[in-house]
Order: sequence, then structure tokens, then C-alpha cells
Amino acid sequence: MKLVQFLKNSKVALGIETENGIIDAAVEGARRGLRVPQTMIQAIRHGNMALEVLEKLTDGAVNFVQNPPAAPAVTGMERILCIGLNYRQHAMECGLELPERPVPFCKFSNALSAHRDTVRLDPAYREYDYEAELVVIIGRPARNVSAEDAMDYVFGYTCGNDLSTRDLQFSRGGQWLLSKTFDGFAPLGPCVVTADSLDPSDLAISSTVNGQLRQNSRTSDLIFSIPELIADLSRHFTLEPGDVIFTGTPQGVMHGWSADKKQWLKPGDRVDVTIEGIGTLTTTFC
Amino acid sequence: MKLVQFLKNSKVALGIETENGIIDAAVEGARRGLRVPQTMIQAIRHGNMALEVLEKLTDGAVNFVQNPPAAPAVTGMERILCIGLNYRQHAMECGLELPERPVPFCKFSNALSAHRDTVRLDPAYREYDYEAELVVIIGRPARNVSAEDAMDYVFGYTCGNDLSTRDLQFSRGGQWLLSKTFDGFAPLGPCVVTADSLDPSDLAISSTVNGQLRQNSRTSDLIFSIPELIADLSRHFTLEPGDVIFTGTPQGVMHGWSADKKQWLKPGDRVDVTIEGIGTLTTTFC
Repeated sequence: MKLVQFLKNSKVALGIETENGIIDAAVEGARRGLRVPQTMIQAIRHGNMALEVLEKLTDGAVNFVQNPPAAPAVTGMERILCIGLNYRQHAMECGLELPERPVPFCKFSNALSAHRDTVRLDPAYREYDYEAELVVIIGRPARNVSAEDAMDYVFGYTCGNDLSTRDLQFSRGGQWLLSKTFDGFAPLGPCVVTADSLDPSDLAISSTVNGQLRQNSRTSDLIFSIPELIADLSRHFTLEPGDVIFTGTPQGVMHGWSADKKQWLKPGDRVDVTIEGIGTLTTTFC
Repeated sequence: MKLVQFLKNSKVALGIETENGIIDAAVEGARRGLRVPQTMIQAIRHGNMALEVLEKLTDGAVNFVQNPPAAPAVTGMERILCIGLNYRQHAMECGLELPERPVPFCKFSNALSAHRDTVRLDPAYREYDYEAELVVIIGRPARNVSAEDAMDYVFGYTCGNDLSTRDLQFSRGGQWLLSKTFDGFAPLGPCVVTADSLDPSDLAISSTVNGQLRQNSRTSDLIFSIPELIADLSRHFTLEPGDVIFTGTPQGVMHGWSADKKQWLKPGDRVDVTIEGIGTLTTTFC
């Protein structure tokens, strides 16, 4: 199942993506006298019960919306976690050894943005960069979970773009937080594919800038797999339902495509992040 | 005014510290037919109106509680920000140059703990360390605020202990997040002193381990002052009411007291962080 968040009268609403358009879960649920989750975080927190009722709505639905404005695929979570240097070829293009353990950092919720949002590039900085990432959404509280059991704690997957300000990232005592959490610097979307519908272990992942291919890899190049990330993080604190993990980006960033052709993002640019089985997440810049 | 959060029937309640004990704001407010904030974050979000009604309660109060179990001084905030390397003498003991700009990082809310809480030291790591810090609590949304105006955005101050796992802090690609956000690793308390009652620019700040002095400095040794921190952070995102900023720690950490006498925290230890005009925040370890 593909779930989306969209805007209805400026409020976040939950929908189900189908061939006939997006089912408005609240309206369709009301028609059938069913209690349905109103937002993605509610769907996540209610787990299988929520998924069952949403699944029911897909059969014989009549309340569709066409191309509504998107909201970020998940909102209201406790944590936006990101993993640095987690693709072999990306670590190599950075001239770094493969990390021995995952490198977690985070963004704040002001960084969330939606499919097709326009994100502002503050003219005080210059080196703005994209990072296509597979994003995992946690479905159940996870603490000291083994890699073997970890996939039972996943609600679903979406596309993310881990936007960065490179000329800020490596100052500030080397702490990446500030450079990564500008308003809108965590686009999430266009939809959440539920865990039962997708095997994340070997998906094509790519990004384009103004239609030109910049990243093109597969999630099988991940150094630490999704189960290994969940095991490692949950060893240190409890992952909560709705927490998202940006799992890292493949090669083709930092210097655009190669070191002699630095092309930072600039106002007017458009970045598309595409992951097989999920879709394309579009961000434009001003 | 000194405000506290305490536990009443396992729920967080708001109190006012006085010579006669802690006024239970909810009970005292109900007696007088006044609407009062029920938690610190409510008091912060309602700003001056909340402070005025709380101030009223201090006159002729009859509902006191004595030594109730404490809750973390602030809960329910959006961000727990911390600043690294922000005391001159501490940067020097680390053998580092003074940073040119503030070094922000953060903790997650699972790290919050209260005055007199016992915090677990995971036996998987060894190098546990304390850091006495003056913590600023933001009172109003702050975006692009100048240093000149910054103090208008402060709700108050409390003591913090920025607990760290040193043997984790400098691995993980140098990102400090994971080493700083173990459960309970952000003790906050014992009270919040409202901004009108304290000038934070030159306060004595110290820590002891099992009664032995380890840090002993003044907030005048801060490299970036509180107004400068608020100006810098709010340049990059909106600081929200309730956000806390751990402003950095003075010398006397990392190696206990000097490099040849490394003494990491161990189960059974007790750390007291004392700041002039606020009080003493106690944490024990198991």
C-alpha cells in the first residue's frame, strides 16, 4: 500500500495512492462509518489495526482527490535521524575509509518539506548540495533489537533528500547539525510504501538536477543495511514509532559529479530523487 | 521567581519554590479560581500572562508540597541544543584553538532527567564524563534576532549536566550525537529561575564528583555569550518557546581534573552541578 499526506484546507490529511487517484481516508472512512487514522503518525502508532482499516478503504472507494498539494510524508515524529557515509562508493569519492560503525546525526523538524515544495537557499552561504536517500520509518518502539528481528519494527519507506550546506558543514567543530537543518532541508515523499509491499535491500536510487543525472546507484551498496542500522541505533536509545532514518546517500554528491565540476544548487534549480518501488520526490529552490 | 516541575501521582506538575516549600500551582490556582499553567512548557508558551498569575500565587499561598520528587525542569520542548567548546579554559585544556563560531549539537528528549535522578551507565562503554552547564530556556519564537535584542527572548535559566560517553564521542565519524543522548544524559534542574531574576553574565559555576571539586569557573569565561548564541542559532532556524540551550562547560572535564588522573564516572558516583543564583543539580549513577 502507498500512503500519502496531503493538504486539505491547509491541514495535513491522510490518503491512499491508487490508480484512480488518492483516496481521502477521512472522507471515505466517514462514508463507511469506519474510524480511520487522520495523519501518517496516527497510522504508524496504530500499527496493523490502522493498516487493515486503510486496506479496506481501497476496495470500492468513491472519494478521491486528484493531485492535491503534498505535505511531508511523515510529520510529528520524535526524531529525524540521518546516517553519514553509508554507501561504499560515496565513502570512496569522499576519500574516506569505510566507517567501522554507523555515523548518526540528525535534523530538526523545521527541516521537513513536502514533494514539490520550494526550499529557500540563504544567500549567506553558497555550497548547497543534494543527497538522494532511502528513508526508513519506524513502526514500533525499538530498544536493543537484533538485526535478525529489526525488520519487524519497520512501518515503511519513503524517499528523502538530505540537503546540506557544505560551506557550513565542515566548520562548527565538525558537527554537521547546523548545516543540515535549514528550513525545508529534509524533503520527504512523495509517499510511504508500507513494509509489506517493498524489499528495500536492492533498489535503484538516483537523483537528477534539472533533469541531468547526478546519482545513480542501488541500495545494495549500503555499508550498514537497514536491519544493522536499527540494531545499532536501538542499542543506544529507544527508536519511537514515526522516527525516520535517512539511510545515507550514494556517490555523486559533494562535487556534483566529479571534483573538477563543482555545481552547487542555486535558486531556480530542481532536484528529483527517485527510488524504485517508491516514486520521485521533487524539490525546487529559490 | 524560581519555578520547578515535580511529580504528583506520577504526572508532571508545576510549582513555585519559596522559603516555605513548593507552592503546588494547580491546587493553589484552583483555590483562588485562577487559570494557571500546569507544566513548565505551558508557562513558557503563555509568557508574561503566565508569569503574572504565578507571581500572584506567591502572595498568601496555603498549598505547599515539601521535597516532592523532581521532574526535569523543562519537558515537551522541540529542541535540546548544546554548544561545544564554549569556555576559553576548556578549549585550552582540550588543546584546541578557540572556535571562531559556536559549535552546536543536540540531544534527544530521552536524555532528559530530573534533579536527584539515577542514571544508568551502560557497561558496554567505559569513559563516562560530566559537564556542568548553564542552560538557557527560550521564551518566544526567535528568528534572525540580533544579539542586542536576544535577551528579550529568554524565559529563564537552569543547571544542566551534559553527560557524555567519551569512548563513543570521537568515533562515529566525529559526530557527537550518539555519545550524548543516552537515556538520562541531560539532567535539567533543580529549578528554572525566570529571566527577570538573574543576570547570567558572571555567575559562579562548579561541579563536584562525590563531593570533590572538579570544575570551578565563572560564566564570564564563555567564548560566545548567551545573546551571541541566540543570534547565531536564530540566524539558521527558528528557536521555539521551551527550546533549551546547554551553553557549554568550563575546564575540568575530559580527564577528570588533569590528564594524568583520568577518573571516569562509575556506578555509585554522585555529581553535583552548582550555579550561583540557581542551585544544585544532583545526579547519581548506577
